[in-house]
Amino acid sequence: MVTLESYACGEWRRGRGNSRVLRHAVTGEPIAEISSEGLDFGAMLRWGRERGGPALRKMTFPERAAVLKKMAGVLNEHIEELREMATSYGATAKDARLDVDGGIGTLAFYASLGAKQLPEARILADGDVSPLSKEGNFVGRHVYVPLEGVAVQINAYNFPSWGMLEKLAPALLAGMPSLVKPATPSAWLTFRMVQILIASGVVPEGVLQLVSGSVSDLFSHLTCQDVVSFTGSASTGEKIRTHPAIVRNAVRVNIEADSLNCILLGPDVAPGSPTFEHFKNEVVSEMTVKAGQKCTAIRRVLIPEERAQDVIRELRQSLAAIRVGDPRTEGVIMGPLVDEDALASARQGIEKLEAEAAIVSGDPGRKDFEPKGGFFMEPVLLHCRDPKRATAIHEVEVFGPVATLVSYRGPEEAIELARKGGGSLVGSIYSEDEDFVARATLGLAPYHGRLMVMNAKSAPESTGHGVVMPHLVHGGPGRAGGGEELGGVRSLHHYMQRVALQGDPERLERLLST
Amino acid sequence: MVTLESYACGEWRRGRGNSRVLRHAVTGEPIAEISSEGLDFGAMLRWGRERGGPALRKMTFPERAAVLKKMAGVLNEHIEELREMATSYGATAKDARLDVDGGIGTLAFYASLGAKQLPEARILADGDVSPLSKEGNFVGRHVYVPLEGVAVQINAYNFPSWGMLEKLAPALLAGMPSLVKPATPSAWLTFRMVQILIASGVVPEGVLQLVSGSVSDLFSHLTCQDVVSFTGSASTGEKIRTHPAIVRNAVRVNIEADSLNCILLGPDVAPGSPTFEHFKNEVVSEMTVKAGQKCTAIRRVLIPEERAQDVIRELRQSLAAIRVGDPRTEGVIMGPLVDEDALASARQGIEKLEAEAAIVSGDPGRKDFEPKGGFFMEPVLLHCRDPKRATAIHEVEVFGPVATLVSYRGPEEAIELARKGGGSLVGSIYSEDEDFVARATLGLAPYHGRLMVMNAKSAPESTGHGVVMPHLVHGGPGRAGGGEELGGVRSLHHYMQRVALQGDPERLERLLST
Repeated sequence: MVTLESYACGEWRRGRGNSRVLRHAVTGEPIAEISSEGLDFGAMLRWGRERGGPALRKMTFPERAAVLKKMAGVLNEHIEELREMATSYGATAKDARLDVDGGIGTLAFYASLGAKQLPEARILADGDVSPLSKEGNFVGRHVYVPLEGVAVQINAYNFPSWGMLEKLAPALLAGMPSLVKPATPSAWLTFRMVQILIASGVVPEGVLQLVSGSVSDLFSHLTCQDVVSFTGSASTGEKIRTHPAIVRNAVRVNIEADSLNCILLGPDVAPGSPTFEHFKNEVVSEMTVKAGQKCTAIRRVLIPEERAQDVIRELRQSLAAIRVGDPRTEGVIMGPLVDEDALASARQGIEKLEAEAAIVSGDPGRKDFEPKGGFFMEPVLLHCRDPKRATAIHEVEVFGPVATLVSYRGPEEAIELARKGGGSLVGSIYSEDEDFVARATLGLAPYHGRLMVMNAKSAPESTGHGVVMPHLVHGGPGRAGGGEELGGVRSLHHYMQRVALQGDPERLERLLST
Repeated sequence: MVTLESYACGEWRRGRGNSRVLRHAVTGEPIAEISSEGLDFGAMLRWGRERGGPALRKMTFPERAAVLKKMAGVLNEHIEELREMATSYGATAKDARLDVDGGIGTLAFYASLGAKQLPEARILADGDVSPLSKEGNFVGRHVYVPLEGVAVQINAYNFPSWGMLEKLAPALLAGMPSLVKPATPSAWLTFRMVQILIASGVVPEGVLQLVSGSVSDLFSHLTCQDVVSFTGSASTGEKIRTHPAIVRNAVRVNIEADSLNCILLGPDVAPGSPTFEHFKNEVVSEMTVKAGQKCTAIRRVLIPEERAQDVIRELRQSLAAIRVGDPRTEGVIMGPLVDEDALASARQGIEKLEAEAAIVSGDPGRKDFEPKGGFFMEPVLLHCRDPKRATAIHEVEVFGPVATLVSYRGPEEAIELARKGGGSLVGSIYSEDEDFVARATLGLAPYHGRLMVMNAKSAPESTGHGVVMPHLVHGGPGRAGGGEELGGVRSLHHYMQRVALQGDPERLERLLST
């Protein structure tokens, strides 16, 4: 059994006291133990601020980009090993690529962005010079400078690789050292990746630290120069947001939490049409990729009431073809959930949905999977006939291969139902009717961080509803946490302070290149 | 005595129950009574969302800008009356212009920005198209759409006009109806301005509502589509930030709170030099304009230890010339504080500072002012000799004509002391030494929202340390609340949702003009 150590203040440290045991998602066998007991979080933050911060800030953006590029290179050398390790939390080969390759790809994207689009400087200009006097010797100019604290990155269990790297890459490029805290159930992969990165020597000391285990009193040590980026449950998000030190010091908090993402089938799309086929494949893919354990996965499928029986029939047929089991077995399409808690929680969630919706495909109680010890569940599709009065289907995020069909009567009701999610990461609209699309886009946009407005022309080239591209922002209002990550250069702003400089124009110009 | 009514759901409403009495700052005489008891805040928010929001969102940006222009025009017609009313909270003629003319000017600035720089559209594009597929039929594009809730704007007592208009103008231009809540001590002026605006008929119904009095259970009714912008004390800011409904719904909160702004005199600047004179005038101006009741006012004056006696002598001389009294009297330069509480609080604050610093000019207990009933205090300058061990001088914001001289030994200590403010709205650096300026700018920037980097060339044309320009962002990290307002087009983003659209490029282009 592996011991997952933490990397703190330049040393690998084994946690004291009781450790928690991680189990293999496919077999249920113990694979690793983890504990962060005894770590001095105040010292770790100081180490980051005093060693990592200055090391990064003396580099220009392209120099930091070069570090990212080396990091991606080192990880790429171990990509086969990392993909294989992903099986331990239930990933199929396809799932592993989404997480491992997707993460390294995101790192490489920011390396390229930093090399090609950012100036050879340490300060980022924002907008133009604003003249503030008639004679022109007094002007204003906005710039971004790196915050001088530590970026604390708390990740969810579903993406131990991508989740770490999509936060780490922008933070490092912006000039902020990072402290990474993976979710325990899949912390093994993150641990291994950090081990590879640290051993390679490509990351300057203090720039990357790892907490394997819980964060204990970490938040109490935060100042206005630190940032917390959190992906996980809404309830943990609320605890972070209201932590006394975070509130008192106005610590920046970026939260990505529960999201009841929807896909909306336009009234014009007939079963059998190419647009319908794309829609159907998207739903099945979102339900089954990573066994539905994606914060961006489709949870609500909004369909015209009159199409309900057709859609149910079509989806049933497609879902029946999804073979669930050991992802290393030929022909298996969907693996298990990450652990026993996740499985129990998904089943409890389905029970809540069943108060308002009926299961039309799949059996959440099915247990005849191989191997016996794994945390398997087959895809479960529900149908809600009275979604306007329902609450659970719009509010309970079941983190597994589960979605609910929601019948709507007319475009306005479709928009109203979509909004009942209370703010989501991503929504999809499938329709060829431009009037409907315009209306639905305007109706859904204020409640979403990302919107796919799909037709038969764009769908064949689509990267998919649930796939987060590094070019585009990722996050959503309300229930989704109100945060924002990625989006190219936009992502750097979360780790920088925008300052309006005022003075004589030559002096300001000079300062930009310091 | 005037009764300050609220404007709620299209009607002027008088508060029930016990009202609070407002007193004239100069004479202490009662001038108005105020109460918001009995207002239905849930209904007010619904009124804004259902009447005001749709009215604004059907307009293009230039159409909204035209509304702002008409508002500025109507207020300008009453400018003499409004300036005169400003005496009631202690404003001199100069103070009144800063608040009344400054507010209307900010409104006009956003009217002009909307007319000239924003598209004839309802959606704002953000950045370029991102290609996401080889064939080019699937791309990404970021847009901003207005949030569909209400912008709740809670203002401080020091700027009843500017404080309202600097929040209102960007919100309306972005497409969000607003609910304005002025601070009680100076609510009369805000009430009168809203009265003028509503009577003029230039503001569409539902777009502007007014709460005269307290906000009671208002926050409980907020959703993820609403925004709260608050200017005031750090303690009230913390209550807002941790309100259960705000936390649960991830309601956007923009806070501007306490700020221990500093001015930093470079070691190179000798007394008697033009740069020193500009520095000295800035300190005196910041201490006395609006009797020091500006959130941007200089609270800490960082000076080289060896210059301390020179600086004290020069400032004493200048401050001695400040005549305090009835602002309507010829020759009076500084008026009273806003009310009895403000005066008591300023005196208590000075007592805290005196534990670490000695008064070198002014007497906080002086009472021989005319008229007798006014809330007067003369400018008080303190000097702290051991600022590295001190805490109060860096943390207690005394909201009155009060500043502390802080001696530093060497540039690094100067930067360290400036940062002890824990995040500020604005800082000023006065120096001709470009190396020192570069070092100090980089050192101070992560802790500030705005930085003046002044020399003898820019100072004569300066708009002043404490004056917030609509072109530039206003806000600061940490103790200053972590918020951001204004900054031209940037200010609109606080009231809009950024969404990444994905689809075929022609469709996305069409959507931009809907």
